[in-house]
Amino acid sequence: MAQQQRAEETRTHILQAGVECFAQNGYDATGVAEICQRAGVTKGGFYHHFPSKQALFLALFEQWLTILDEQLAAFHAEAENVPDGLREMAGMIGQVFEVASGQLPMFLDFWSKAAHDPDVWKEIIAPYRRYQTFFAQMIQEGIDEGTLRPVDPKTAAQTLVSLAVGLLLQGTLDPDGADWAQVTKESIDIYLEGITKQDLKKPGS
Amino acid sequence: MAQQQRAEETRTHILQAGVECFAQNGYDATGVAEICQRAGVTKGGFYHHFPSKQALFLALFEQWLTILDEQLAAFHAEAENVPDGLREMAGMIGQVFEVASGQLPMFLDFWSKAAHDPDVWKEIIAPYRRYQTFFAQMIQEGIDEGTLRPVDPKTAAQTLVSLAVGLLLQGTLDPDGADWAQVTKESIDIYLEGITKQDLKKPGS
Repeated sequence: MAQQQRAEETRTHILQAGVECFAQNGYDATGVAEICQRAGVTKGGFYHHFPSKQALFLALFEQWLTILDEQLAAFHAEAENVPDGLREMAGMIGQVFEVASGQLPMFLDFWSKAAHDPDVWKEIIAPYRRYQTFFAQMIQEGIDEGTLRPVDPKTAAQTLVSLAVGLLLQGTLDPDGADWAQVTKESIDIYLEGITKQDLKKPGS
Repeated sequence: MAQQQRAEETRTHILQAGVECFAQNGYDATGVAEICQRAGVTKGGFYHHFPSKQALFLALFEQWLTILDEQLAAFHAEAENVPDGLREMAGMIGQVFEVASGQLPMFLDFWSKAAHDPDVWKEIIAPYRRYQTFFAQMIQEGIDEGTLRPVDPKTAAQTLVSLAVGLLLQGTLDPDGADWAQVTKESIDIYLEGITKQDLKKPGS
């Protein structure tokens, strides 16, 4: 039991060291040796938990997505209707910008890896498709509850995911170019204005 | 005169060879030697025209943007009003997807370079900011001509550029995930629905 707990702790240390090293120097420039040193583990300890640097990165990505998924699900469950839920989610993006800030080099290194390696690509593309499905279902719900126009849910979801991806990419590439959390909020308002039933819109808009 | 013409031709050959090599193997994996071989020029010839591989890439990027700028300006000039102009531009994105198809590895390699190198970053970020200004002016025009709601032009432009960036990134990362040209058209319709004056919208929408 104590041994299992120690193993858990080691894994957590490696994950934490991975975030720090990748964020600081990017994915390519970070070696397993450096991660081991920061985590205070041997190479043997590292490879016991992760078969490769790539596996560690994917585990971190997975961890990050799990948190995002939980937050999205919570907003979805708590919101009174779909437009409110989407507005709450947009507000959360502000936090995502903070977390992602300074970590873009790492993501770009990895995306560029994905573009060359079909296995990595599959891991990266799966969540995109998952978010598209999630938002398509949510938009269908909005149509059913009568808050949204009868748009094509799949297309409207792809529009939303594209907007989010573009905002994140711009926000992390050009953090000083705008107040991105605010731009995100207003972007979602424009988007919602585009898919909300007209008779529910604010008068004068 | 003949010598100047030959120099022009050599430059064109190098640019063309650069596109082909970068698209095929990515930016990182392409060496100057390989570009020279494909272009049929000596290394001396290459460095006469471009101080580095990076300079060649930036020249290609510049060339691509110049074409895009000209097309945007033409659509802008020819359209009867701003919403029509934006719809025409969205139609053009279909072509951009074709050109960009298979070239994502190259762009991602380069973006990841930009994230590590402030000089490259400056070259990459300048066009984003330029497009934001271009679209902000266009949206202001739409407000003035009475087709668009009095949205904040800067924010609405950032929304539009984010949407375009997100569509391009998704479309090139996941070309088979959707008919991206069609998604782009419909995304712009949602966007326009969001910023168009209500009394000008199609009834029943």
